[in-house]
Amino acid sequence: MGFPINKYSKSMEEYNRALKVIPSGIYGHLGPAEGCFVPVSAFPFFSERAKGTYFWDVDGNRFIDYMCAYGPNVLGYNDEEVDAAAAKQRELGDCITSPSTKMIDFAEILVDTVASADWAFFAKNGGDTTTLAVMTARAFTRRKKIVFFKGYYHGVAPWTQKVDYPGILEEDVANNIYVPFNDYEKLAQVFEENKGEIAAVISQPYMHGNFTDNVLPADGFWQKVRKLCTDKEAVLILDDVRAGFRLDLAGSDHFFGFEADLICFCKALANGYNVSALCGKEFLRNTVSGLTYTGSYWLSAVPFAAGITCIEKMKRLELPKLLHEKGTKLKDGLVACAKKHNYDLRVTGMPALFYLRIANDDSLMLHQRWIAEMVKRGIYLTNHHNHFINYALSDEDIQTTIEVADEAFSVL
Amino acid sequence: MGFPINKYSKSMEEYNRALKVIPSGIYGHLGPAEGCFVPVSAFPFFSERAKGTYFWDVDGNRFIDYMCAYGPNVLGYNDEEVDAAAAKQRELGDCITSPSTKMIDFAEILVDTVASADWAFFAKNGGDTTTLAVMTARAFTRRKKIVFFKGYYHGVAPWTQKVDYPGILEEDVANNIYVPFNDYEKLAQVFEENKGEIAAVISQPYMHGNFTDNVLPADGFWQKVRKLCTDKEAVLILDDVRAGFRLDLAGSDHFFGFEADLICFCKALANGYNVSALCGKEFLRNTVSGLTYTGSYWLSAVPFAAGITCIEKMKRLELPKLLHEKGTKLKDGLVACAKKHNYDLRVTGMPALFYLRIANDDSLMLHQRWIAEMVKRGIYLTNHHNHFINYALSDEDIQTTIEVADEAFSVL
Repeated sequence: MGFPINKYSKSMEEYNRALKVIPSGIYGHLGPAEGCFVPVSAFPFFSERAKGTYFWDVDGNRFIDYMCAYGPNVLGYNDEEVDAAAAKQRELGDCITSPSTKMIDFAEILVDTVASADWAFFAKNGGDTTTLAVMTARAFTRRKKIVFFKGYYHGVAPWTQKVDYPGILEEDVANNIYVPFNDYEKLAQVFEENKGEIAAVISQPYMHGNFTDNVLPADGFWQKVRKLCTDKEAVLILDDVRAGFRLDLAGSDHFFGFEADLICFCKALANGYNVSALCGKEFLRNTVSGLTYTGSYWLSAVPFAAGITCIEKMKRLELPKLLHEKGTKLKDGLVACAKKHNYDLRVTGMPALFYLRIANDDSLMLHQRWIAEMVKRGIYLTNHHNHFINYALSDEDIQTTIEVADEAFSVL
Repeated sequence: MGFPINKYSKSMEEYNRALKVIPSGIYGHLGPAEGCFVPVSAFPFFSERAKGTYFWDVDGNRFIDYMCAYGPNVLGYNDEEVDAAAAKQRELGDCITSPSTKMIDFAEILVDTVASADWAFFAKNGGDTTTLAVMTARAFTRRKKIVFFKGYYHGVAPWTQKVDYPGILEEDVANNIYVPFNDYEKLAQVFEENKGEIAAVISQPYMHGNFTDNVLPADGFWQKVRKLCTDKEAVLILDDVRAGFRLDLAGSDHFFGFEADLICFCKALANGYNVSALCGKEFLRNTVSGLTYTGSYWLSAVPFAAGITCIEKMKRLELPKLLHEKGTKLKDGLVACAKKHNYDLRVTGMPALFYLRIANDDSLMLHQRWIAEMVKRGIYLTNHHNHFINYALSDEDIQTTIEVADEAFSVL
């Protein structure tokens, strides 16, 4: 019982201050509405600083961070090479009336790196690119309907939400069709039933949803989906916002052996600098050009400079291989540790972005208690969201994580 | 005939490089599809650096920039105070799993500064906040319909576009009602005809649309709209993305003597650092809390630090007054110069964000030729979009602008 237990008194003070001026105090993945993701009483509300794989909260507690800002931290927080490139560009200028040529350089490196990319279009949110992808598919095909795989997440625009969510109308989701992932027969049937009406199929490379074990594509599934979309002249959209660059620098479609028509990137694109990208095939270039789509900060040059250096470094490191190794080592260690304590810890998804669940208890409460014990001892995990590996995570960090897990299982 | 005429050979080279990897080469306001905004052969495509009120293109030409990155540049490019605050935060961290308390500080200063703000919610695009505002209004009222004033611009989400635009469906705009600006009778009639069905009225503080003279609110118009919304229990949304902080630091609703329920900010919020904010009234706080709305970079701390310093500096300077004075001096000088050459130059909107049109020629061609002569001589204007004043614009810059205008009118 050696690891100190974190106290969060300053976090709580700050949270009470936040409650006065911010709806819910903290929002996004962290708000009380989504509190099930994080063990509320066990986790810090506000961070003070970050470096490498660690962040420190306002009470001075240090965390080995397996959320990586929900993805953007891929090389380690405050990576010196990326920050130096960004700082150099900032001296010149960032958000200027005319774009910097860094925009071209960034598009060139994406086109060189991503197998299915003939062009790149930059925005700010992952959701900007999923919406642009759907608009592109509709404009190109002159069809309305979009097929989703159940358990999807494509951002927060109304068309991506559910009709019973507050603020969402039936019109927002009127052209959505939902099919189980890996169920090719059902997908083919849906295409039959909606002949000539399906503009696109949109999907993550594999199902990394919340509150559920991650599901990898069945053998041949993507290849059949690709052929069906081609045959039926529907656009195949890959939402690689979450998995992008962690599995394969050439795109997660390349990793699973197919080519998407449009591919959406965000999180790992620039190590946290604010930029997203839609990449696509030549045949959709003119369609994208004809859409009305722009934003106040979309030409900002600093994130382009950061993104160029981030991708160059990921290529130099052959990063996906390293993330796979680190994730595998962590996963094997955690599973063995759980087994020692007679717990059945399931680790699903790919090791670079893995999902955790203790399978001994269907209520999830046991799992949540274990996560709480981990977080209180400085290992930042969440309950029911996938986790992320970054380059700065060392063998020693993994070893510490497993030692903490050992103690956390003991006290359950 | 003293001013040198710019050459754009490197810009053209870079544009040709861009065409290979970016749809249209340049997009947003600058793409060929929108080419009417800028005198294409007369303007630079790519910038090299920026400082104060100037930017330099890749051919080394310097411009006095009246577009201010389409708004974000409000204190001058690379403002040293804002950049220092941002750099200090960057040393600590930017996009981290848990937010920085800078988020709270930023919300506090907005609540202190903006008259109609009881809380603030941060995102990345102006359009993130207009969409959130509409969702909030729908969730609160449990109604569907949204009233727009003709000539509106509220971003690029499908619901803000027109049904005949590519990629847009009739479902996207099925609940939109369009009413002429300043036509209170028509608005009241629309409320009668859609009794109990109108969730919100959304509007800019005045009409600063493209291709048309800007239109200020008629006397008492906003007060009547405010009362009608209150009486009919509809939410009044102010889209202050473009005008915000340039007219009044307390919000453009405050400037025109009313209070909106929700107010959308972006461009001038952080002098170009990438952040937007929805502010609102107490009665909508819980509704916003209950929506599903988040993004990968929305907790980034560097833009919060920049925004805090930007707003503090704008307050210290009493900036709107200065921008009004600078804009008025420029406007008076340009109009007098035009008159000397027998041109009727109309300057509409507020001086801090003015719209230009030479009224002698309905075809707009004469106006476009004049703008081209200005841009070729280093005065960056666009044809049919409003312009922006920033703090770094000096009397000498204004004098130079009028001297160039004199020459440009001469050569027409």
